[in-house]
Amino acid sequence: MLVVQVHVHVKPEAIDAFREATLENARNSVLEPGVIRFDVLQEREDQTRFQLVEIYRTAEDPARHKATAHYAAWRDAVEPMMAEPRRSVKLEALFPDAACWEMPEETAGE
Amino acid sequence: MLVVQVHVHVKPEAIDAFREATLENARNSVLEPGVIRFDVLQEREDQTRFQLVEIYRTAEDPARHKATAHYAAWRDAVEPMMAEPRRSVKLEALFPDAACWEMPEETAGE
Repeated sequence: MLVVQVHVHVKPEAIDAFREATLENARNSVLEPGVIRFDVLQEREDQTRFQLVEIYRTAEDPARHKATAHYAAWRDAVEPMMAEPRRSVKLEALFPDAACWEMPEETAGE
Repeated sequence: MLVVQVHVHVKPEAIDAFREATLENARNSVLEPGVIRFDVLQEREDQTRFQLVEIYRTAEDPARHKATAHYAAWRDAVEPMMAEPRRSVKLEALFPDAACWEMPEETAGE
């Protein structure tokens, strides 16, 4: 399991459009077999700052995600919205156990 | 629901001790009624950098967490391990729906 955290800083006028484009991407991304979760977060004290927390089954799955049509559409849509380049960090999940990272069955993909 | 992300940078010689103290704290924290998740992550490219991702039910629950004996024990144990002060960020979860943040029933608290 691999956690990729993408830090995004958007232009103030792009907050709503970024949110919409990113939710659409997230809804499609959680349907990929290699994606365990695809969380979207927004900072409370600076709403121009977002995080995508992408949890993949294997080291190959981030590249598969980047090969999808929904990723390409998102990347192109948000390109003019960036206030600065995105920064991504790869993390190892130490707690809880891997099984706990799955979304509850009845809600997955909503 | 409130997400608190705590960024921790430890001294290189404290990596193992910090991990142990933090896993103990996390195992106790997920048993708090106000805690939905308490994830512990470590950066792959700089193992002195950790994140605690604390997901609370309400705005009052972070203060309740800080009033527990396990939090106090953790705070005191890790104090000499810090390479720099901890930094915390409050985030709003935009995706998925709140129900998806709960740990799967059969694995919760493990």
